[in-house]
Amino acid sequence: MNVDGTHYRTIWLAEDGWSVEIIDQTRLPFEFVTVPLKNVDDAATAIADMWVRGAPLIGATAAYGMALAMQADSSDEHLSAAYEKLLATRPTAVNLRWALDEMKSLLAPLSANERSKAAYDLAAKICDDDVEMCSSIGDHGHALIADAHAKKTDGPVNILTHCNAGWLATVDWGTALAPIYKAFDAGIPVHVWVDETRPRNQGASLTAWELGRHGVPHTVIADNAGGHLMQEGRVDMCIVGTDRTTASGDVCNKIGTYLKALAAFDNDVPFYVGLPSPTIDWTLDDGMDIPIEERSGDEVTKIQGKTPSGDVVMVELVPEGSAGGNPAFDVTPRRLVTGLITERGVSEPSKSALAAMFPEKAS
Amino acid sequence: MNVDGTHYRTIWLAEDGWSVEIIDQTRLPFEFVTVPLKNVDDAATAIADMWVRGAPLIGATAAYGMALAMQADSSDEHLSAAYEKLLATRPTAVNLRWALDEMKSLLAPLSANERSKAAYDLAAKICDDDVEMCSSIGDHGHALIADAHAKKTDGPVNILTHCNAGWLATVDWGTALAPIYKAFDAGIPVHVWVDETRPRNQGASLTAWELGRHGVPHTVIADNAGGHLMQEGRVDMCIVGTDRTTASGDVCNKIGTYLKALAAFDNDVPFYVGLPSPTIDWTLDDGMDIPIEERSGDEVTKIQGKTPSGDVVMVELVPEGSAGGNPAFDVTPRRLVTGLITERGVSEPSKSALAAMFPEKAS
Repeated sequence: MNVDGTHYRTIWLAEDGWSVEIIDQTRLPFEFVTVPLKNVDDAATAIADMWVRGAPLIGATAAYGMALAMQADSSDEHLSAAYEKLLATRPTAVNLRWALDEMKSLLAPLSANERSKAAYDLAAKICDDDVEMCSSIGDHGHALIADAHAKKTDGPVNILTHCNAGWLATVDWGTALAPIYKAFDAGIPVHVWVDETRPRNQGASLTAWELGRHGVPHTVIADNAGGHLMQEGRVDMCIVGTDRTTASGDVCNKIGTYLKALAAFDNDVPFYVGLPSPTIDWTLDDGMDIPIEERSGDEVTKIQGKTPSGDVVMVELVPEGSAGGNPAFDVTPRRLVTGLITERGVSEPSKSALAAMFPEKAS
Repeated sequence: MNVDGTHYRTIWLAEDGWSVEIIDQTRLPFEFVTVPLKNVDDAATAIADMWVRGAPLIGATAAYGMALAMQADSSDEHLSAAYEKLLATRPTAVNLRWALDEMKSLLAPLSANERSKAAYDLAAKICDDDVEMCSSIGDHGHALIADAHAKKTDGPVNILTHCNAGWLATVDWGTALAPIYKAFDAGIPVHVWVDETRPRNQGASLTAWELGRHGVPHTVIADNAGGHLMQEGRVDMCIVGTDRTTASGDVCNKIGTYLKALAAFDNDVPFYVGLPSPTIDWTLDDGMDIPIEERSGDEVTKIQGKTPSGDVVMVELVPEGSAGGNPAFDVTPRRLVTGLITERGVSEPSKSALAAMFPEKAS
């Protein structure tokens, strides 16, 4: 998508033809900085320290991490070591394992001198496929927004989103935000309620930033506010992303998603999830079996912001001696989900409907 | 309660016998600063700018604001003007109007030269009554925590609270936290999940501070986390305060309370509300009729914290051009509430039960 008139993806091959460049998302919204990744350690750090985040982009970065590993040393040992190192970076997003498995099953049977080129080719294809899937999600979700608009007598379609499932979370377009960009570009009046998404504020810092760069009207709200806005009829639909969705349609996403789904259900507000199919974990039925990453309590007790003099600083929010607890994801049971917007269309959240839409993947 | 071994209330008469002192709660948790209120304008500013907050303390401060007004000028005109000025400070908490009406109905019939002393006497009584009511709420809630403890096979009773309904929100003891202090003092092992309560972070800054000063084990969590913790069985009960509860038991409280009540209901976690009876609005049945204060969006887009060098600063959280939306309260329908812990005991949230408990007030 566009940043000050220039089109960017979130990850791309550098001009040298082998190193990889990303946007350091920890510097947003205050600074737009690109960072080179020159080896598998860089890629692992970029994922673990959340320079990149979002399930699809984590997968794409891991794929390029494997390519960087093969470029340096294409031995069997290094292939295995790179796979394990990258797999250990984040536990929840299933795209990470999916992308690494795609890379490993392509690379393992090849001879060492074939691996580097093949790895770069597949990493590029994973990225291109992600863009295509997200664009299709956008088209299917656009239709839902158009329907909602047709039912309104006045005002924009008010869409609530949580965390960042925009183009910054993918290679381009986004998952939850792709429908919004497509609808906005088509001239449908939309307004987005952006949950700030504590503790890491991906909504306030990333979603607000990318919507603002694209010109989409939006308002940042505390994570506490969405239920009240739904009670007042000020939300027409919710669209969120997901880090992993089970074969039965249970949705694991950024902590707090479950609370919004409860409120949407209680107020008859449609609750949609945008997801490319690699985000589906076909091996799991029950969302409660998904491992939930527990991140540092420091992410709760401190926050980054910009001072009046323009410095970006980390400030302490709690009294000395108080600790923070920080589960990073939660699971929204399928009973609270209206529909899953995939690249092939909108599926009801059930094992049979997902299997019918992806017969080649369901077992 | 205790601050570094010294007992404090949140509001008290100064040594000069006429000015009033408060704790500037906007400076917590980083600085403990007391501030004198010397006239009705000081009292109005203290309420509007949230140097004091919490429904009971707002009422107590308004009462002393009337006393300060009468001390300066006890004319009818000044009585009316002070009443109107103080009433306009915050729209949601019903204790404000209740305390002002108590003061006005005492003072209006008196001659001008009787008013000042009578005003100070009634303000002091309102404060003492609040302490007594909160202590009783603590006793009734303590019994609920003791029951929960008796049912546990191991570990502390895990109690989730939202915002600050501790002694800082009242004159002493608190409403939601009074039961926790009483249980803790009685030796029941408790652990409190403290919602940080964006946007103003009263949980992270005030509740964590006062629990820490009293030695009560607690963990600060993002407002997003509570639902997940309940899904995992890590919350035994919720106790929150309220700014206004209707005669039918609908509970208006800090924004985000409704989301926690939904999650508690969905996970069979008891959801209690601590409230002194002046917080009940006997004139309203439907919580949706309560006016919800819309505060400045700056409270969402900026936050106060302490830098590594020890400076307390306000930092910007959102990209340039993104605005914040900030409804300050929401309404939890009575169907989601397990019980109302009042100074007379635990009532079910219904018109008949509340009327039976407070027959002299129900009409």
